[in-house]
Amino acid sequence: METFEQMLATPPSWLDASGPISNVVLSTRVRLARNLEGVPFPMRAGSSDLERVRDRALAAASAGNYLANALVLIVDEKAQSRRQILVERHLTGREFLGAGPGRAVIIGDGELVSAVINEEDHLRLACIKSGLMPMDAWRLVERLDTELEQNLHYAYSSDWGYLTSCPTNVGTGMRVSVLMHLVGLVRSNRIAQVLGSISKLGLSVRGFYGEKSAALGGFFQVSNQMTLGQSEDDIAYTVERVAGQLVSLELEARSELTKKGGHRIEDEVHRAYGILTSARIISSDEMMALCSSLRFGITEGFIDSVNLATANGLLVSTQPGHLKHFDGRDPGPDRRDRIRADLIRRELASGSRA
Amino acid sequence: METFEQMLATPPSWLDASGPISNVVLSTRVRLARNLEGVPFPMRAGSSDLERVRDRALAAASAGNYLANALVLIVDEKAQSRRQILVERHLTGREFLGAGPGRAVIIGDGELVSAVINEEDHLRLACIKSGLMPMDAWRLVERLDTELEQNLHYAYSSDWGYLTSCPTNVGTGMRVSVLMHLVGLVRSNRIAQVLGSISKLGLSVRGFYGEKSAALGGFFQVSNQMTLGQSEDDIAYTVERVAGQLVSLELEARSELTKKGGHRIEDEVHRAYGILTSARIISSDEMMALCSSLRFGITEGFIDSVNLATANGLLVSTQPGHLKHFDGRDPGPDRRDRIRADLIRRELASGSRA
Repeated sequence: METFEQMLATPPSWLDASGPISNVVLSTRVRLARNLEGVPFPMRAGSSDLERVRDRALAAASAGNYLANALVLIVDEKAQSRRQILVERHLTGREFLGAGPGRAVIIGDGELVSAVINEEDHLRLACIKSGLMPMDAWRLVERLDTELEQNLHYAYSSDWGYLTSCPTNVGTGMRVSVLMHLVGLVRSNRIAQVLGSISKLGLSVRGFYGEKSAALGGFFQVSNQMTLGQSEDDIAYTVERVAGQLVSLELEARSELTKKGGHRIEDEVHRAYGILTSARIISSDEMMALCSSLRFGITEGFIDSVNLATANGLLVSTQPGHLKHFDGRDPGPDRRDRIRADLIRRELASGSRA
Repeated sequence: METFEQMLATPPSWLDASGPISNVVLSTRVRLARNLEGVPFPMRAGSSDLERVRDRALAAASAGNYLANALVLIVDEKAQSRRQILVERHLTGREFLGAGPGRAVIIGDGELVSAVINEEDHLRLACIKSGLMPMDAWRLVERLDTELEQNLHYAYSSDWGYLTSCPTNVGTGMRVSVLMHLVGLVRSNRIAQVLGSISKLGLSVRGFYGEKSAALGGFFQVSNQMTLGQSEDDIAYTVERVAGQLVSLELEARSELTKKGGHRIEDEVHRAYGILTSARIISSDEMMALCSSLRFGITEGFIDSVNLATANGLLVSTQPGHLKHFDGRDPGPDRRDRIRADLIRRELASGSRA
């Protein structure tokens, strides 16, 4: 089991670009919402209930295989900076930014599987894999779920399926999210039309780190809206299929852009690289835009001195919580932009990460 | 004696930043306008007269020391691309862009001294030195002048001094030009005021390569307007003194800028370096602006991976005539901006030039 510090020393494994279609899909996340029978949902439960939930969940995790030797983080009032980092690494949702009783996170090797305790639900199990992997990620989190269920009694209705704190999760409790880099569709002004048709297929789309990451960098999260009335396999398959169609459109857009504006694009992506490796002040917005250009340059074969994993890693390691951690204190906005630039230069100089 | 090709392989020695105050002053040029007694000025002379002038001047040069083993270029109709390069290296004036009978240029080692034959006057002798060197450059060109005069009979009036084609050169026939990088005064918006007072002192100011090089890069040429009624020593001394005052004001402006905006300036100059070493398309205007930032970054100690000589060299080697020569043909504007970017990357990668 590694420590929190060791975990932070490298980007999450789901950013390592080892998975299929990594040129367009950064990662696939599948999470299951689960609650314990006979205990109120976290919003309505008292501290002692929540602490009991936590202890039972931790016990179940250690009794199994997938999280037996995992990193356990107790996320109490003192853990404020940790909480921000957990959100930035997609290990917990944004509601975890505030403190709450009985909260904990269990994180497996490479952040591949994890369990969040007492967030919106008693238990959120997740698997994040590199590339486009809805079925594989679902299979893995399913095995974790089955394993934990041997020691936990889930709230389940034969009519509704798994019961959850928010009605939108009832049924399978499953959310499949695919993190995509749709830079070609954004640049060719086709993104609005494409995303419009996605929502008609029952999928939702958000920016990776809020709206700006979408507008500036073309980083989108595509996920299912429905959790009820479909099997988990169907949900995973639907997301995989739709994401696959997006991939085709994206690759088509990129190839057209490169064909039409080869020299201009080659120039632009190299400039992005030049600024990333040279600038001393880089805002979060600019980083997102430059990182997008850098990824584009790598996938289109213009840039070979940086690999995709390094470019992906920057998206997480340059977030405010991470920078605060590296700096050992809250740097404030001005210094933060300088630390971000320093970190980017270091990461790009250390070059090719596995 | 080196060939024209060998000469082009390195920047002129006056860009090597070896002279005094090279952080602000790139170079000092002193030229003398001379005409031969009894021959009409070039504008009014026939081809045979001009060819005779050329032959006499070449003979006088080979008989002396300073230009005895120099490169002699006959600049006839066929030498069009050469003519542009000569203008870009400040060896001839812009009127040399057109062809004319009897034209030739004699260029000494490192382009330190030179003689232009049948430009506006029969003979223009010049010395260009690195840094702020009016007196030294004048002394050297004076020795060349004296040497040539042993074999040439100059048009001279005891009332007026040396007679020249244009009345503004009559008297000493001397023009002292100091090429300055006034980036601090431009950035702190004090340049207009400062240059206004310069013109009251009887000096004129122009951009290094036209107005844009001044506005975009802060590259100015400061020179005397009067050639009559003052000795050569006085002219050289006046320009040296005024340029020295400009240097003080410039250094003051730079130090204030760096004090006030340290991090921002550090960021900006490194970005300029990043773009210069990465971009694939760079226009002449952008090059001038980036090169100015690069020089500023070097002189203020922010950038140590490039030396001033390399930064200076880019100002000349990236001019259109030079790029055409390197490309072996006229590349046209689009390709020219790509060749310029390629050349800049190569020059900066080859790094520190002596």
